[in-house]
Amino acid sequence: MKLASLRDGSRDGKLVVVNDRLTYCTEAGHIAPTLQAALDDWDRVAPELKLLAESLSHEAVPMIRFHEHDALSPLPRAYQWADGSAYVNHVELVRKARGAKMPETFWTDPLMYQGGSDTFLAPRDPIRMRDEAWGIDMEGEVGVITGDVPMGISAEDARETIRLIVLVNDVSLRGLIPGELGKGFGFFQSKPSSAFSPVAVTPDILGDAWKGGKLHLPLHVDLNGKPFGRANAGVDMTFDFGRLIAHAAKTRSLCAGTIIGSGTVSNKLEGGPGKPVAEGGVGYSCIAELRMIETINSGEAKTPFLKFGDSVRIEMLDGEGHSIFGAIEQTVEKA
Amino acid sequence: MKLASLRDGSRDGKLVVVNDRLTYCTEAGHIAPTLQAALDDWDRVAPELKLLAESLSHEAVPMIRFHEHDALSPLPRAYQWADGSAYVNHVELVRKARGAKMPETFWTDPLMYQGGSDTFLAPRDPIRMRDEAWGIDMEGEVGVITGDVPMGISAEDARETIRLIVLVNDVSLRGLIPGELGKGFGFFQSKPSSAFSPVAVTPDILGDAWKGGKLHLPLHVDLNGKPFGRANAGVDMTFDFGRLIAHAAKTRSLCAGTIIGSGTVSNKLEGGPGKPVAEGGVGYSCIAELRMIETINSGEAKTPFLKFGDSVRIEMLDGEGHSIFGAIEQTVEKA
Repeated sequence: MKLASLRDGSRDGKLVVVNDRLTYCTEAGHIAPTLQAALDDWDRVAPELKLLAESLSHEAVPMIRFHEHDALSPLPRAYQWADGSAYVNHVELVRKARGAKMPETFWTDPLMYQGGSDTFLAPRDPIRMRDEAWGIDMEGEVGVITGDVPMGISAEDARETIRLIVLVNDVSLRGLIPGELGKGFGFFQSKPSSAFSPVAVTPDILGDAWKGGKLHLPLHVDLNGKPFGRANAGVDMTFDFGRLIAHAAKTRSLCAGTIIGSGTVSNKLEGGPGKPVAEGGVGYSCIAELRMIETINSGEAKTPFLKFGDSVRIEMLDGEGHSIFGAIEQTVEKA
Repeated sequence: MKLASLRDGSRDGKLVVVNDRLTYCTEAGHIAPTLQAALDDWDRVAPELKLLAESLSHEAVPMIRFHEHDALSPLPRAYQWADGSAYVNHVELVRKARGAKMPETFWTDPLMYQGGSDTFLAPRDPIRMRDEAWGIDMEGEVGVITGDVPMGISAEDARETIRLIVLVNDVSLRGLIPGELGKGFGFFQSKPSSAFSPVAVTPDILGDAWKGGKLHLPLHVDLNGKPFGRANAGVDMTFDFGRLIAHAAKTRSLCAGTIIGSGTVSNKLEGGPGKPVAEGGVGYSCIAELRMIETINSGEAKTPFLKFGDSVRIEMLDGEGHSIFGAIEQTVEKA
């Protein structure tokens, strides 16, 4: 099934079940008022939501038009947002661009940071920033929303805790990252509010594309209306979502509604960095990666970070070309 | 007023108003079911809660005995837990112990990390860990719970967003910190679930002790029943809570219910590191600080980190010797 949280003036939105084509939805408030409430009581709630989704598919319940721009992020605020960096290829490139060698353990021990989860942007909200010089960038990612996860869970068992899958724009401020990481405590100001896809889907919706804790489909990232990235989220993902969840739960349990991100989706090309979409490659899911490749190839980055007025679109299509999650589509604006 | 969340089988507990001496409480569910619900609608809810607190002080409402061990952390799960490191003295010592110089900017630009906020421990819950070798330590801190905070707020205005004050045990796994910080993305596994005091209080409760965005009272930290720390939370706090909140809100707004921590409370003694309580000093709020001083003085740390069976107590007393927030009291157990 597909779930969304509609804007209704409340902080957490109104839970609705959306049809497969994202054209209609039906209110689910009589089952659970919000998505967090549904996740808190998933074993009881999920079967009822599935019945409602089936009724919706038969047009046997009251329906309203579903407009993606009415949706908040599925969890407009969450108790946890932990973002991995599972495409180790991407990490290796970052290091290479600054002339540093990546430790070998990065291939076996996942990188993950604790992100802010209290004020997510809606998928069509502008990215409002005070200063272009902060180096505003998108990061196209896949994310999973978990149920309750006990401390010390295995990677295999962790896959079974995945309730929903979403897309993410993990907005990053590249200009603030070096100073902040240099202080040693990780990201904070350099990772402002992220945005999520209008719709969250259960794994069964994805069919064969969901396999081994990975989503095997290209992530469409467009910049100002032009294709910028088409990297396959199932390719070069060193750590599947089960591994990432188990990593997060090593020393504590995780609450239902925890969102775990994949990190920027990134594919190698013949062992090296990829090529832009315009040159026949699969491109990139963030500007920083293209700039790193430019730096490696020509000594300097040429593509600028996002400027006020620029727009980003992140989406994923099924085998028939239909949008699975709806689109994140955000314009950068001066705050 | 003083607020607590009583254990009732739900994830967020039941909101109660507690009397000044922490002996009785009264249910506040008709005003707001949970503390988060109260914070979400504070302007409407707070005056009603204050009236209820007044009625309670006159024993004019139904009362039940208040037992600290029935309390969850005031927010059993929160949308944000961001922990500062405002006692720069402490940071300087950490660096000194490993022979590193602290950058001068640390005196002007706050250190802060994003903590996990989805599964806080109750104030009397055991600290259950799988391995003693992880170097289990307490960190006694003061924390504030904010209302909604707009992006880019000034430090002065930020002080006005403080709704409640709490004590914190920011449990830390010292053995996992160097490896994790070495990866560059900050803490994750090395910061398991924190615990908060049984009671959260509004700033007015603190009288003159709350001044300039700091809490000017000694933080009592006991280890296995003996005084370990009596450092004054208002002394040597380089950044007040207004500065810490403004730091967190530089590039995004913060949601009501955000908890901001002070970092480990630490006092200098005549410009140098302090002395143990048993030697007439104010002692320490974490074991790591004592170990650093031992390392500086004698070349090696002697005091071990917490072992299974050890207990920690964190509390703060008012001018008459009464507990303000109730006590965090936790025993370390094998998971």
